[in-house]
This record gives sequence, structure tokens and C-alpha cells, in this order.
Amino acid sequence: MPEAPFDVRTSPATRTLATFAASTRYADIPGPVIRESKRCVLDYVAVAIGAADEQAPCIALDQVRDLGGRPQASVLVHGDRTSIPQAALVNGVMSHVFDFDDTHIPTVLHATGPIASAGLAVAEARGATGRGLLAAHAIAFEVSARVALALSHAHYEAGWHMTGTAGTLGAATAAAQLLGLSPEQMVNALGIAATQAGGHREQFGTMTKSFHSGRAASSGSLASLLAERGYGAAPDSLEGRRGMFHVMSSRTEVERLTDGLGEEWEVFRNGLKPYACGVVSHAGIDAMRDLRGQVRESEIAEIELRVHPLVLELTAKPAPVTGLEGKFSIAFAGAIAFLDGSAGERQFTDANVRRPDVVSLRDRITPVADESLSNVAAVATARLHDGRRLVSEVPAASGTPANPLTDEDLAAKVIDLVDPVLGRGVGERLCAVINRLDELDSLAPLLELTKRGH
Amino acid sequence: MPEAPFDVRTSPATRTLATFAASTRYADIPGPVIRESKRCVLDYVAVAIGAADEQAPCIALDQVRDLGGRPQASVLVHGDRTSIPQAALVNGVMSHVFDFDDTHIPTVLHATGPIASAGLAVAEARGATGRGLLAAHAIAFEVSARVALALSHAHYEAGWHMTGTAGTLGAATAAAQLLGLSPEQMVNALGIAATQAGGHREQFGTMTKSFHSGRAASSGSLASLLAERGYGAAPDSLEGRRGMFHVMSSRTEVERLTDGLGEEWEVFRNGLKPYACGVVSHAGIDAMRDLRGQVRESEIAEIELRVHPLVLELTAKPAPVTGLEGKFSIAFAGAIAFLDGSAGERQFTDANVRRPDVVSLRDRITPVADESLSNVAAVATARLHDGRRLVSEVPAASGTPANPLTDEDLAAKVIDLVDPVLGRGVGERLCAVINRLDELDSLAPLLELTKRGH
Repeated sequence: MPEAPFDVRTSPATRTLATFAASTRYADIPGPVIRESKRCVLDYVAVAIGAADEQAPCIALDQVRDLGGRPQASVLVHGDRTSIPQAALVNGVMSHVFDFDDTHIPTVLHATGPIASAGLAVAEARGATGRGLLAAHAIAFEVSARVALALSHAHYEAGWHMTGTAGTLGAATAAAQLLGLSPEQMVNALGIAATQAGGHREQFGTMTKSFHSGRAASSGSLASLLAERGYGAAPDSLEGRRGMFHVMSSRTEVERLTDGLGEEWEVFRNGLKPYACGVVSHAGIDAMRDLRGQVRESEIAEIELRVHPLVLELTAKPAPVTGLEGKFSIAFAGAIAFLDGSAGERQFTDANVRRPDVVSLRDRITPVADESLSNVAAVATARLHDGRRLVSEVPAASGTPANPLTDEDLAAKVIDLVDPVLGRGVGERLCAVINRLDELDSLAPLLELTKRGH
Repeated sequence: MPEAPFDVRTSPATRTLATFAASTRYADIPGPVIRESKRCVLDYVAVAIGAADEQAPCIALDQVRDLGGRPQASVLVHGDRTSIPQAALVNGVMSHVFDFDDTHIPTVLHATGPIASAGLAVAEARGATGRGLLAAHAIAFEVSARVALALSHAHYEAGWHMTGTAGTLGAATAAAQLLGLSPEQMVNALGIAATQAGGHREQFGTMTKSFHSGRAASSGSLASLLAERGYGAAPDSLEGRRGMFHVMSSRTEVERLTDGLGEEWEVFRNGLKPYACGVVSHAGIDAMRDLRGQVRESEIAEIELRVHPLVLELTAKPAPVTGLEGKFSIAFAGAIAFLDGSAGERQFTDANVRRPDVVSLRDRITPVADESLSNVAAVATARLHDGRRLVSEVPAASGTPANPLTDEDLAAKVIDLVDPVLGRGVGERLCAVINRLDELDSLAPLLELTKRGH
């Protein structure tokens, strides 16, 4: 890579990743990757808009209003214009509050929240084109997912929230692409981002989980803005002896950072969610919806729901008392999906977790850990009062790479989330605008559509 | 603690610490603790002012100017008024760029940078009194140091920069005290702070090391501002299974958080630095200054400088090429201290690391690891050309609790740092104002003095 006259102390992994991140252009990115990136951006905008009036983003927005800032970038729905990192913060919180954003299946990273929140803010501030935004998303997704892979599952097992950690590097990359940073500046941007990476899983089930996505977007964009001005960082911020990987994971796989870089794209292992909760619950929900087609609730004596042990680690709450807690209860999610036929955001309410019919069915569902299943598979076995047994097997949940959300499913999700907030027809128009994002010289039409009052 | 009607899920350590942090008042704090807190604040203001025109804070300030913000709090020296977290960010960077700020000896935490940067910003924004600021500092120091102790040395050994991690909780506590948060809000503030804690030691020797102090100040103040508005976090953010302690340290000592809380004060184990580099180098510098009184440079054939192994882990650079790198070379620091008689900021320059007399003496100094010494001790043994041997033993470096900086030494340090930046006499006036901080109804006289042009 002769165009990057790096300091000799810079070791290959950070240098290679930084050169990829800074030097790849729209034309270098395969068409199917751009297509998936569009779907990510569309899904992101919808899940964020849908949550715009929730408590967490509203508190964050009130705070940002109090702090002030130059009108560089817009807050979705509310339309406030504030500084880049602050707009990224609020939009990042908004995008994760429903737990409805996309998931990189191998790592449970929700990459797009931090990336698109930082990317949109910088794109607006610097007047980027639609292609600029899409290229930034595609490249940043790749960097973020590869950092997550390199950190390995040990990082997640230790209690880190991948979205807060690897997400910060994704946000920095998206911002850096749109700022046009050089490979040398990119090394610094990745370093300033890496050292800010954070987010503990203890915060799951609280407002601070969504804060992780916003903080990653804000920290990452600030990292690249500082690097643009010449702020320096270590050359080996990722793989150095005291760098992010060794400090934050007991088992790193540094080769995952660069093997096949630019040839294999991680966005193909990303999933868009059909249901408004953690992706690990989705196969169980699919199985329960499948049973719904075969039997009435009153016929069911009990249901054994077999899932991967990780699913139970995350969603074993037997009796949630709030809608948010309901997202961490596979028994509740399965029960409401059976009874309502879906598991969108409006299913996960405080009222629904208390509904007698839901509680009754929920208490007949017993989740069981089964190591032989993948973490996106489930098997539901219903024993009926008449003695019959019904089995529903889901090898790959809907919304996972082997069983992806269709464009029609995605459009339905967008409309379902957007129209109640921005008015009838806006969801469909958003789909249309983002579908031709690669033809837009300006993001103004997209930004206008995301504001209340249009 | 009947005044804190906590959620029953809140376990004792976080609850106890939060109640202490939110409920302790100026009158509850022993006089000697207030006295030490004043010395910390004075030392902080001086090391920050001295570094105001360095590259790292100037880049950060330029960035903050571009982001804009309401004029809530002042940037030292430059006088810009910006939002609380942004003022805290720039002042935090400024305070750590010389590596000349205070050190909690048992943990190598530089607590005051994040604490005072957040504290001063919130105090100015909310119109606090001098007593309010001093109480916030005293309490925040205690919280920050105890978090560092609970994380244990394993946390530091893994590669975390204590100032970035435990510093964030100190900054949150200082801000929370000045905002008047309730114990319940304090639990949330500590949680939002804990999950943002970061900073890797790989960044040592780069601008990003100082960024850690600024980021901690900014993150901590934002955490408390959000908590004030009702933003929620986990009840067990520190000691929970996926909380800060378990995620960020392989060996935590959670009882250090609360044992003797309010009775034993960690500020008495804090050291103010006489030299502008890491505290681990100070005993070696003391030993070299002692030899200076006994022998001329031309008589020295070689010097063996025995220090604790940690000292060499941090400062073994044999041939630094920049002033900043010189701070991580005990051989250079020892040589310049011998030749110039001191090791203040003006010794650690690019020119001095290249001076022929310095290089010549530096190359005659051999640092040797000695497990039998404490990390603030050193023994220098000089072999002279005439065959004589001279030994200088330093059991506890100057500026450590066993050998503290006197008020006169501190005043001299303040004047040395402040007067070249703000003009002759300003250092002395700063000493006088901070000495009567507990009598000031407003921080205006202090803030005025720290601005250029007065």
C-alpha cells in the first residue's frame, strides 16, 4: 500500500485496517454490499423514528438542548439542529431504545446504530452525497464487525456490550470516510475511538443500554473530528500490548481484522429484525407464531421451548413487570407472539406484560437450554390437554442471514414504525427515498422526510 | 441509611457509596481533608494553566469552538465559555498533558484532573460557593480513589489507565455533588459514568493519554447531568455480575469501596509532583539531584539506577527523541535533573533530549529493576573515573505522602507554571485566592485570575 507512508512502528493490522477504512471508495464496493447498506440505513431510520418520543432519547435531547451547540446536524423527528457529536448521541440512543435495530449475527453487534448516527450527522454537516453516506456505511460496518470478530466472543462473555465497544470504531470510520481522512489520520481516529470504547452488559434492561449506542456514535465522531485536526494516538491502538484487544478481551483473534478484507463482507451476516427485542428471542417467537397456526391457546397444557443456552442467559426473566423487561423474557415474548400474532414494538408494553391471557400462557411456557441448537434456532414442543404433542422447529430465525427479511417485510416494518410518529404515507416515502439514495446529490430530501411536520 | 429508599435490588456497595457521595456535606468533612483538597485544586489549576498552549488542549479547544455550545463554563487561560462537558473536556486534557498532576500513590490514579475539570465547570454553571467546590472535590476524590482501589492493581496491569476509568466516577461525583443529586440519582450517575469508563495504556506517550483525563471529566459530568433529568441505569453498576468491576478487572476488592468510608480519607495518600513526569521516575530524579551536590558530571564513569520493576515497565525508553518521550525515559530524566538541577516542564523539551551533554550523561545511566524497592524509592550508585563509588538512597520520593511537597514547594511550582503563561504575580495571587477558597461565596475571583489578560 504505497500511498500510506506510515511510521515504521505501525504494525500491520492497524495499518491495513486504517488504509482500507480511509482509502476505499464507493466504486470499490460491490453492488450487493451497497444494497445491504441501503437496507441497514432504512431499517435504522425506521427504528429510530419509531422510538423518537421514548423517555431515553427525550431526556438526552433535553440535555443536549441545554448544552447548546452549532446547528451542524439534525436530531431525527424532533428536527433540532446541534453539534455533530450531540446529534449523533441523541439519534444513537433513539435507534437502540426499542432493541429493534440490526444485528451482526456472529457477534451480536448492533453496528448500524452507532455508524449511521455518526455518519448521518457528519454527512449533513459536510454536505455529503447519498453515495458518500452509503460508502461510509458499508466500510464502517466492515470495520466495526471485524473489530467485534477480533475481540471474539470472550469479550462479550466478560460482560462488554459489543455495540458500545466495536460500535465506537464503526462510528469513527463512518465519520472519517465522510471527512475524507488520510490513512495516517485514520490510524489516529481508530486509536482515539478505541480508547473510548465502553459499555457494560449490566446496563441491559435500563435506559443506559441505549445510551451505549449513542455514546459510541458521539465518541466515534469526536475521534475522527479530532484526528482531522491532527490529534495523535498510538500507532498500535488495537493490537498493541496495552491496546484495545489485549485490554478488553482475554482471547483475541487479530487475524479476523484483515483476513479477506475488501473481498468478504460482513454485512451479509447481518440480520434485520422482524421483532422488537433481542435477536436471540426471534426463533422462539417464530416457533410460537407457527404453533398459533396449528392450535388454540385454550388447548395448550404446556410448552417446552428449547433454545441455545445464550438465549436463556439473556432472556430468562420469568415474570417481567414492564414492557422493557418483557424484551428480556422469552416466555413473555413467545406468549404475546402467539396471542397477538406479532411481536412488534406495540406488543412490548407495560399493559401487555400484565394482561391475564398473556400471563396465563407465559406461565405455561418453559424455556430449556439446549447446546445442540444454534443461537438463532428454537424448537417448541406443545403438550395439549387432549394428550397430543405438536412440534415446531425453527432452524434459523426470520431476519437472520439464512432466512432474511424480504424487502416487503422491511417496508412493512418501516411503515409500522414510522407512520404513527410522522404520519400516514411517510414510511413508504422513506422507503422510496432510501431506495434511490445512491442517486441523491444531497441528503436534504431524506433529512426533510425524517422531521415531524412533513 | 433511612434517607435513601432504594430499590431492593440495589446491593450494599453501590448504595453505600452513592449515599456517601450524595449526602456528605462540607461540615461532615474533616478540616485536614479540606486542606488537602485545596492543595489539589491549586496544583490542578497550575498544571493546567502551564499547559494551556500545548498542542493537545489547543486542538481540543479548536474542535470545541467548532462544535459550539451555551456559555456555561470557562476554558482555563483561553477564557472561552462553552457547555459544561466541553469545558471539562478541554480543561481535563490541559491538566494532564504535562504529566505533572497529582497521583494517588497506591493506585497511580491522577484523580484531580477529571474531578476538578468537571467540578469547576459545574460549579461555574450553577453558581457554587468555594465550600461547595471543596466539598465536591473531597468527596469525589474519595469515590474515585476507592473505585481505583476496588478495581485493584490487576486492572492497571491489564492495561487500563486508572485516570480514564476511576477518573470518570470521580468526575461524576464532583458534578453530582454540585448539582445536588439525591442518592437515587447518584446511583444512576455512577452507573452512567461506570459504563463509559475507558482509556488504554497503549496511548501513553501520545496526545491521547491526556485525552483520557478530559474524556473522563466530560463523560462524568454528562452522566450526572443526565441522572439529574431522570436518566436511569442499573442498580448494581459497579459490583453487579456484568458491572464495571467484574468486566474491567480480573481481581476486584469490592470491600475497598466502603471499608472505613467517611473515616479514612484517601487524599492523605495522594502526592503532588515536584517533577513534570510520571511519579515513578521521581525517586530516581531525587537521587540524581542528590548526586549533583556531591560530584561533577565529568567525574562520572557510570551510574547504576536501581528502581522498582514497574518503573522500568513505564520509563525504560533508552533514547527518547521528543520531550514527551523524555518523560518516559528515566535515564533522560535523571540526566537532565543532574545537569539542570531540576525536572520541571521546561526540562522536558525536544531540544533538551538532543543536548550533547544530556545524551552523554544519559548513556552512562543504566536503570536496573529491583523488586526489593518500593515504586517510589530509588538507589543510585555512581562509579567515578577515579574509582570512587557514591551512593544516594531515596526511600520515598519527594511529593509522596511520606515526603510531601511543602506549601512553599507547591507555591514555587505554581509560580513556575503560571507566571510564564499569565504574567508575573498571577501565580502568587492564585495561591492566595485558593488558600481562602472556603470563604468565597462565588468562584468569580478564581475564574477571573485563570484567564489570560488579567
